[in-house]
Amino acid sequence: MNNFIDEALQAHRENHGKLEITPKIKVRNPKDLSLAYSPGVAEPCKEIQKDKSAVFEYTMKGNMVAVISDGTAVLGLGNIGAEASIPVMEGKAVLFKSFAGVDAFPLSLNTTSINKIVETVKLLEPNFGGINLEDISAPNCFIIEERLKQETNIPIFHDDQHGTAIVTVAGLLNALKLVNKPITDIKVVVNGAGAAGIANIKLLNKIGIENLFLCDSKGIIYEGRPFGMSESKEKASKITNPEKVQGTLKDVLKEADVFIGVSAAGTLSKEMVRSMNENAIIFAMANPDPEIMPDEAKEAGARIVGTGRSDFPNQVNNVLAFPGIFRGALDVHATEINEEMKLAAAYTIASLIPEEELSEEYVIPGPFDPRVAPNVAAAVAQEAIATGVARREVEPYKVKEKTERLSLIRKEELIF
Amino acid sequence: MNNFIDEALQAHRENHGKLEITPKIKVRNPKDLSLAYSPGVAEPCKEIQKDKSAVFEYTMKGNMVAVISDGTAVLGLGNIGAEASIPVMEGKAVLFKSFAGVDAFPLSLNTTSINKIVETVKLLEPNFGGINLEDISAPNCFIIEERLKQETNIPIFHDDQHGTAIVTVAGLLNALKLVNKPITDIKVVVNGAGAAGIANIKLLNKIGIENLFLCDSKGIIYEGRPFGMSESKEKASKITNPEKVQGTLKDVLKEADVFIGVSAAGTLSKEMVRSMNENAIIFAMANPDPEIMPDEAKEAGARIVGTGRSDFPNQVNNVLAFPGIFRGALDVHATEINEEMKLAAAYTIASLIPEEELSEEYVIPGPFDPRVAPNVAAAVAQEAIATGVARREVEPYKVKEKTERLSLIRKEELIF
Repeated sequence: MNNFIDEALQAHRENHGKLEITPKIKVRNPKDLSLAYSPGVAEPCKEIQKDKSAVFEYTMKGNMVAVISDGTAVLGLGNIGAEASIPVMEGKAVLFKSFAGVDAFPLSLNTTSINKIVETVKLLEPNFGGINLEDISAPNCFIIEERLKQETNIPIFHDDQHGTAIVTVAGLLNALKLVNKPITDIKVVVNGAGAAGIANIKLLNKIGIENLFLCDSKGIIYEGRPFGMSESKEKASKITNPEKVQGTLKDVLKEADVFIGVSAAGTLSKEMVRSMNENAIIFAMANPDPEIMPDEAKEAGARIVGTGRSDFPNQVNNVLAFPGIFRGALDVHATEINEEMKLAAAYTIASLIPEEELSEEYVIPGPFDPRVAPNVAAAVAQEAIATGVARREVEPYKVKEKTERLSLIRKEELIF
Repeated sequence: MNNFIDEALQAHRENHGKLEITPKIKVRNPKDLSLAYSPGVAEPCKEIQKDKSAVFEYTMKGNMVAVISDGTAVLGLGNIGAEASIPVMEGKAVLFKSFAGVDAFPLSLNTTSINKIVETVKLLEPNFGGINLEDISAPNCFIIEERLKQETNIPIFHDDQHGTAIVTVAGLLNALKLVNKPITDIKVVVNGAGAAGIANIKLLNKIGIENLFLCDSKGIIYEGRPFGMSESKEKASKITNPEKVQGTLKDVLKEADVFIGVSAAGTLSKEMVRSMNENAIIFAMANPDPEIMPDEAKEAGARIVGTGRSDFPNQVNNVLAFPGIFRGALDVHATEINEEMKLAAAYTIASLIPEEELSEEYVIPGPFDPRVAPNVAAAVAQEAIATGVARREVEPYKVKEKTERLSLIRKEELIF
């Protein structure tokens, strides 16, 4: 493990982090200079001054996302501050570019004030075609995302919420095909009421799951619960637990079909899994150690198990979602990423595994599957147009081709 | 000219502006992913959490400058707003990278409020090793720069002020060698009391010029002038015009040795040039048309003429200064760019033309002279160390070598 630590440090230290800003125009002579800078640069300036929407064509905005964090909820590290969070944000930008050709720039802000973060992003809006919020702690992340959606005119996407939810739903859709249970019949329990848990509830509700429960460390959440509630839990309680069942996680798991954990290692016991219905589906995504280890879950009768880890089957990895989603949103100059676009992403990710290839060990495509980002991008762009949030129309197959062209992931180059 | 406009528009439209964010780490397999992102990325995060200064080593901060504008004073275009200013800021970033391997990211802010600009830059400080302020109108630019110098811990440099002043002083130093006038004897008149004019006054004072005058559209500025003054003009009046001479530009130019124009086309007449001392030196930098055309100035007796234009000799081009200055400041993790560092840059630029090569047509190196940025960077780094504003020491020759290595300008590739 020490070797790995050294290698990771070395990879970051070698040359000041992981990103560089590269000119797309060569400047080798006075003519080049006169085109890239004065006086030629005045021409696109004047075009944008005449028609502000031209900023998408003539500047980086059309392909640029800001990765915004306040460093309060970084990976498993917690509240480590703006500076210490930058390597993660740079990593995110590496993935944006590598998987979908999206230019992304990290900006870790030296504040945890909701007002200041919102204000800053609004002042930065001219430069970016979208905002990826990252590693901001709950409940601030909900408020910041909601306010920015209202107060800006570009897509705002908190990946810790929606990325996880989209990939989980994709995996669930395939798992249900395998166990042959209709979506309307199943009972689903989500454990963990942070950013990812709340987002999961919203998307599961959207795909038509009504027999849905959310638990936090104090047990099952129900509307009007007199303890440990927050605005986001209140909202979630309105679309879960219609009978206002009270009790513990253990209680509610009895005869459940699906467990989705975004909570903590060891929260799920074998006994609890045994109490679930036959062909139980478990997504145990606590990091680095899942709510239950896959082999234990299987021993206790679970049929399909996914985790957040790359060393087990069915990894729920956000990289399957965010690069393609922003690619699609950028390509149509979308004003937002709405629930329909998120669902389109989830259905597309699921659809990439043909039914005959589905198995207990393969309900989610691998993170390097080169089909994922192009197909997600095309579906998201199409749904943006269909739902009226696109500022321009592009044929989905063109979005797909562009994503394939811009992606740095080449099937033939992949080394495993 | 229409062809040039089309070419300029095409160069910007082809592929969303002029910049892209490129990963320095390839992500082709799970191992790559585990180093660039989770779990490996946690290691540099933890190092920075332990010691904040490690952010310069492990992240982009060590090589990253923000190009900040509010779009209020863009080239000759004026107050065109944030969006329309982005092509210029991208162009600036292209030059930073091409000439000195400095990564620069454009951020045009959607506000003209001094407080909001200052606050935003402070919140963004964790991500950047320096701030290049650009195309912000006077007097706001002075206040913003001053406040940021006080309230941040990284170099703040308003290029419209200091870049122009540094290159002008470099040209002046060489011109004086040619006409063989000692710096202490000459009379210098600066016309134009905007950002560049004020900065010129400060740097000319620093190199020991006492017989120094500043004019604006209302005439010679003197301490306590009861009309058309501002805080920056008041400050300038204290280091110029010791006798408090009153009058017009025409009056003060009599028996002057040097005219420095950062004002408007046609401000300087042949008659005025004739009234100057023999071997007059003229830097007429109004854009796009200079205060007087070089041939007219020569006809009226001027010996050496420089302008801001690439189609005349002695072009005062900021690109000779800012890339190397930031390269040097970044390499020693400087906390500021002080007057000594600016002077070191000016003396270095001047020194690159050996006395035997100096001529009326060649007192300033050409913008593509590949010696400029590396030597400026080395001198600036050395001066930062000498004046105690460096957070780490680096041998100047190493800074020079690094700049040569990172520059995209290759002597053998230059096409004229």
